[in-house]
Amino acid sequence: MAYPHYGTIDGTIVMIGFGSIGKGTWPLIDRHFDYDRAKFTVIEPDAEKVAFLQEHQIRHRQVALTPDNYREILGELLEPGKGFCVNLSVDTDSLALMKFCRELGVPYIDTVVEPWAGFYFDTTDNAERTNYALRQRVRDEKAANPGGTTAVSCCGANPGMVSWFVKEGLLTLARDLGQDVAAPTNREDWAKLMQKLKVKGVHIAERDTQARAMPRPRDVFVNTWSVEGFIAEGFQPAELGWGTHETWTPDTAHTHDTGCRSAIWFERPGAITRVHTWCPTPGPQFGFLVTHNESVSISDYFTVGDPGAPEFRPTCHYAYHPCDDAVLSLHEMFGAGVQQKVHEILDVDEIVTGIDELGVLLFGHDKNALWFGSRLSNEETKALAPYQNATGMQVTSAVLAGMVWALENPNAGIVETDEMDHARCLEVQRPYLGPVEAHYTDWTPLQDRWEHFPEDIDESDPWQFRNVLAT
Amino acid sequence: MAYPHYGTIDGTIVMIGFGSIGKGTWPLIDRHFDYDRAKFTVIEPDAEKVAFLQEHQIRHRQVALTPDNYREILGELLEPGKGFCVNLSVDTDSLALMKFCRELGVPYIDTVVEPWAGFYFDTTDNAERTNYALRQRVRDEKAANPGGTTAVSCCGANPGMVSWFVKEGLLTLARDLGQDVAAPTNREDWAKLMQKLKVKGVHIAERDTQARAMPRPRDVFVNTWSVEGFIAEGFQPAELGWGTHETWTPDTAHTHDTGCRSAIWFERPGAITRVHTWCPTPGPQFGFLVTHNESVSISDYFTVGDPGAPEFRPTCHYAYHPCDDAVLSLHEMFGAGVQQKVHEILDVDEIVTGIDELGVLLFGHDKNALWFGSRLSNEETKALAPYQNATGMQVTSAVLAGMVWALENPNAGIVETDEMDHARCLEVQRPYLGPVEAHYTDWTPLQDRWEHFPEDIDESDPWQFRNVLAT
Ligand SMILES: NC(=O)c1ccc[n+]([C@@H]2O[C@H](COP(=O)([O-])OP(=O)(O)OC[C@H]3O[C@@H](n4cnc5c(N)ncnc54)[C@H](O)[C@@H]3O)[C@@H](O)[C@H]2O)c1
Ligand SMILES: NC(=O)c1ccc[n+]([C@@H]2O[C@H](COP(=O)([O-])OP(=O)(O)OC[C@H]3O[C@@H](n4cnc5c(N)ncnc54)[C@H](O)[C@@H]3O)[C@@H](O)[C@H]2O)c1
Repeated sequence: MAYPHYGTIDGTIVMIGFGSIGKGTWPLIDRHFDYDRAKFTVIEPDAEKVAFLQEHQIRHRQVALTPDNYREILGELLEPGKGFCVNLSVDTDSLALMKFCRELGVPYIDTVVEPWAGFYFDTTDNAERTNYALRQRVRDEKAANPGGTTAVSCCGANPGMVSWFVKEGLLTLARDLGQDVAAPTNREDWAKLMQKLKVKGVHIAERDTQARAMPRPRDVFVNTWSVEGFIAEGFQPAELGWGTHETWTPDTAHTHDTGCRSAIWFERPGAITRVHTWCPTPGPQFGFLVTHNESVSISDYFTVGDPGAPEFRPTCHYAYHPCDDAVLSLHEMFGAGVQQKVHEILDVDEIVTGIDELGVLLFGHDKNALWFGSRLSNEETKALAPYQNATGMQVTSAVLAGMVWALENPNAGIVETDEMDHARCLEVQRPYLGPVEAHYTDWTPLQDRWEHFPEDIDESDPWQFRNVLAT
Repeated sequence: MAYPHYGTIDGTIVMIGFGSIGKGTWPLIDRHFDYDRAKFTVIEPDAEKVAFLQEHQIRHRQVALTPDNYREILGELLEPGKGFCVNLSVDTDSLALMKFCRELGVPYIDTVVEPWAGFYFDTTDNAERTNYALRQRVRDEKAANPGGTTAVSCCGANPGMVSWFVKEGLLTLARDLGQDVAAPTNREDWAKLMQKLKVKGVHIAERDTQARAMPRPRDVFVNTWSVEGFIAEGFQPAELGWGTHETWTPDTAHTHDTGCRSAIWFERPGAITRVHTWCPTPGPQFGFLVTHNESVSISDYFTVGDPGAPEFRPTCHYAYHPCDDAVLSLHEMFGAGVQQKVHEILDVDEIVTGIDELGVLLFGHDKNALWFGSRLSNEETKALAPYQNATGMQVTSAVLAGMVWALENPNAGIVETDEMDHARCLEVQRPYLGPVEAHYTDWTPLQDRWEHFPEDIDESDPWQFRNVLAT
C-alpha cells in the first residue's frame, strides 16, 4: 500500500508516553514521514510497555518525566531546531514541556493540557482543578511569548479534531441553509459565521458502543482509552463553555473573572453529571458532562465582541457516553467512593462489536440541530492501522494531522486546533475516520422527558442548558 | 432425591402467569405437595409460554385476565373451599383476585400488589401510583373483612422473604449484643425489640452480579426477572418507609394523611434515584431507590406507638443494584426518554457468572450495621431446581414457603409476610437460598464520599437518610 508522505522530519523524534495513544501513533508516524528510525525515541516508565519497545527494537528511555528531570532528559535527547516532541503521556506538565521545546526550537504536540502527577487529586481548590485554569496558563504563555516555534496544544480527537468538525459543520449548515459563504480565514469571521447561522451551542456528542464478549469484572475500570486520564477528568468539576443565549444558571455555578471568561463550572464531578444529548446511532441518550479543553476553547474561539460582555458566544460542552463497560465502571466507582486499582483498555482484537461515534451537535439554528462527525467501527480500524481500537484511531490520526500542519507551519507559535487550518488537517485525517457524516435531527432536549414527573425546564427555548442538564 | 412433602392440596391449583416466576414455581409445587396434576391449570396469555405448557402437557387457558373476565374464568376453574390460587402475573389486580378467592374460600398467594393493566402509566396522580396507595387498599380490605380464608399478599423474595430476614436479623443482632431475648410472638413485641436494639432503619440491600458472555444489545432491556415489572416499579415515584430518627426531609417529599402513614414519596422515578448502601460482595455501592411494598410494610409493622405520632419507626427502603445489564438498560431508557420494546430475562443456562445477594441491612445500632441475607449463585441454582436463575429461586422458594404456611394456617385472613411465622417460612425456604449469612460492617454512608466536592450531609448522625441519598 502506498501511503501519502507528508515530508521529512530531520533529527530526533521523541515520543513521551507509549500507552494506547502512543502505541497507535507510532505506526502512523512511520507510515507518513521520512525520518531517521534509529533516532526515534520513546520515554516510557512502564515495564510492560517497555517490553513491547524492546521487542520492536524501538529506542527508549525507561523513566518517568518529573519537574526535576525533564530538562535534563529531554535536553539529552532533543536536537535544537529539528526533530519533534510528541507528548502522549499522562502525569507530565504540558506547559513545561512545550516551553522547553520552544526554547530549543523543537516542534511540539500534545493532546491535552496535562499537569504533573498528583495535581488532579492533591489540589484542593476546585477552581484550580478546572480545565479553564489549565488552559488559561497555556493561553497566557502564548500571549506573553507570541510566535516562535510551533507548539500544538490539545490535538487529539477531542480536544482536537472536533474543533475542525465544528468549522466543517458550520460550512455544511450554511450550504444546506442555502447561504453562499466562503470559508472564513480568521477567528472573528468564524465566530460571526456561527452567530449569523444562529447556532446557540455545541455538544461534543459521542457514543462509544465498543464492547467485548465477557462481563465487566468487578473492581476493574474498563475503558477504550486511558483509564487514568478518564478518571482524572471525570473527577474534575463539571465544566462548560457558557453561551450568551443562556437565561438560567445552576445554583452551584462558578464563573471566572480573569482570562477568556468563556466557561463556568459546578461543584460536582463531571462524570456523575448527566446531560441529554443526541447521536445518530442511539438517537437521544444521556452523556456525561465531563470537562474538556474544547468546551472552553470553542466557546472562546467563537466569541463575538468583548470577552467580558460578549455579543455572541456559544454554549459548548462534552456529552460523553463512553463504552458500556466504562458506564458500569463509573457507577461502581462513584458508588464505592474509591477508584478501582485495576485498569483495562479494551484491545482492538478482543472487541467484538461497536463503533466510536464522535461528532459535534450544532444546535439552535433554523434546521434545529446538525450532528457532524466520525462513525468509525472497530472492525474498520483493524484494516486502517495496527495497535489501536476505533477510539485510539480518531486520536492518533489527529496527532498525525497536527504534526503535518506543524511541519507546514513551523513558526506559528503556540496554537490550539481551533486556530489551525481545519481543511488541511481534515484532509490528512479523513482516511482514518471511517464514515464522516452530517445528520440533521429534529430532536431537542424538551423531547422524550420522563412522563409523570414535573421537571425544572424552560419550554420557551428548547436549547437552554437548563433543559439539557438531566434532573 | 427425596424432597420434604408439605401436605396435600385438594382441588384445583390455578396459577396465573407463567413468566420467569411462574415457570420456576411450578417444579417446586410439583416436588413438595401432593396434588392432582390433571387439575393444575395455568392462565397465561402469551403464545411462547403456552408452547412450553403444551409441550409439558400442563393444562392451561390462553387468556389474559381483565376486570371483565376474571370472575368468569376463575369461577370456572376454581373449586370452592379447596385448591389454591397462585398469582404470579403482571397486569392483574391483586386485590380483586384475592377478594374473589376469599369469596370462594380458596387460599390465595401473590408476590406483589399488582394493579390492572394500564394503571402504572395511565394514572396521572403520582400519589395514587405509590406502593403506599396500592398496599393501603389491601390493608383496608383486611380491616373491613378480618379473618376468613387465608390470602397471602406479597410473598416473593422482596417483598416477602426479606421481612423474615429482618426478624432473623434482629434475633441474630440481639444474640451478638449479648442480649437474652426470646423471639417475640406479636407485632408490638417485634417492634419494641427493634426499638430496644436501637436499629434506626433497614435497607433491602441487593446486589445482583449475574451476567452473560455477550454485550447487552442496544434498545433491549435486560434483567434477571420481569422486565415489565421492573420498568413499572422503576417509574413509580421513589418511596420509602420514614423513620422517627430522620431530622431532614427532601424538598420534594410528600407524606400521607390517611392509612398507616409509615412512608413518604418523592417526585422522581425510583429507578433513577441513587442511594449509598452496602452488600458483602461489593462493599459500598450505589443502589436505586425503587419503591417496594416492603418499604412501607416493614416501617409500618415495626412502628411503636400511635401511627400518626409514633414513638419509634424505622426507615426502610430498597437499595437495589440490579444486574449490570439492567443498570445499562436503565441508563439507556432514562437517557432515551422511551422504554425499550424488546425485553430479555437472563436465562439460567446463558448466565456465565454471578450471584443474587439479597438481604437486609439493619443499621444504626451498637454494632453499626448488620447485613443478613441470601447469597445464592446461579451455578448453585442449577443444582437446586430447574427453569430459573438465582433471582427467580429466591422468589419461587418464598412462594413455596408462603403456600406451606397458608395450608397450615387456612383461616388467617389477609396477611403480609411480616405477619407470618418467619421461622417456619425460612425453614421451608432455606434449602433453596444457598449461603444465608450474617455480616457486620463498620461502613456508614458518611464513609467514602467524593473527595473535593462539598455535599449536603449531616455529620452528626451517619444514618440520616440525607447521607444515604446520593447527590
Ligand atoms: N484529546 C484526545 O482526544 C485524547 C484522547 C485520548 C487520550 N488523550 C490523552 O492522551 C494521553 C495518553 O492517553 P492514553 O490512552 O495513551 O493513556 P495511557 O494511560 O494508555 O498511557 C499513558 C502513558 O503515559 C505513561 N506515563 C505515565 N507517567 C509518565 C511520565 N511521568 N512520563 C512519561 N510517561 C508517563 C504511562 O506509563 C502510559 O504508558 C492522556 O493524557 C490522555 O488524556 C487525549
Ligand atoms: N416479590 C418479589 O420478590 C418478586 C420478584 C420477582 C417478580 N415479582 C412479581 O411477580 C410477577 C411475575 O414476575 P415474572 O418475573 O414472572 O414476570 P414475567 O414478565 O416474566 O411474567 C409475567 C407473566 O404474566 C403474564 N400476564 C400478563 N398479563 C396477564 C394477564 N392479564 N393475566 C394473566 N397473565 C398475564 C405474562 O404473559 C407473563 O408470562 C410480577 O408481578 C413481578 O413484579 C415479585
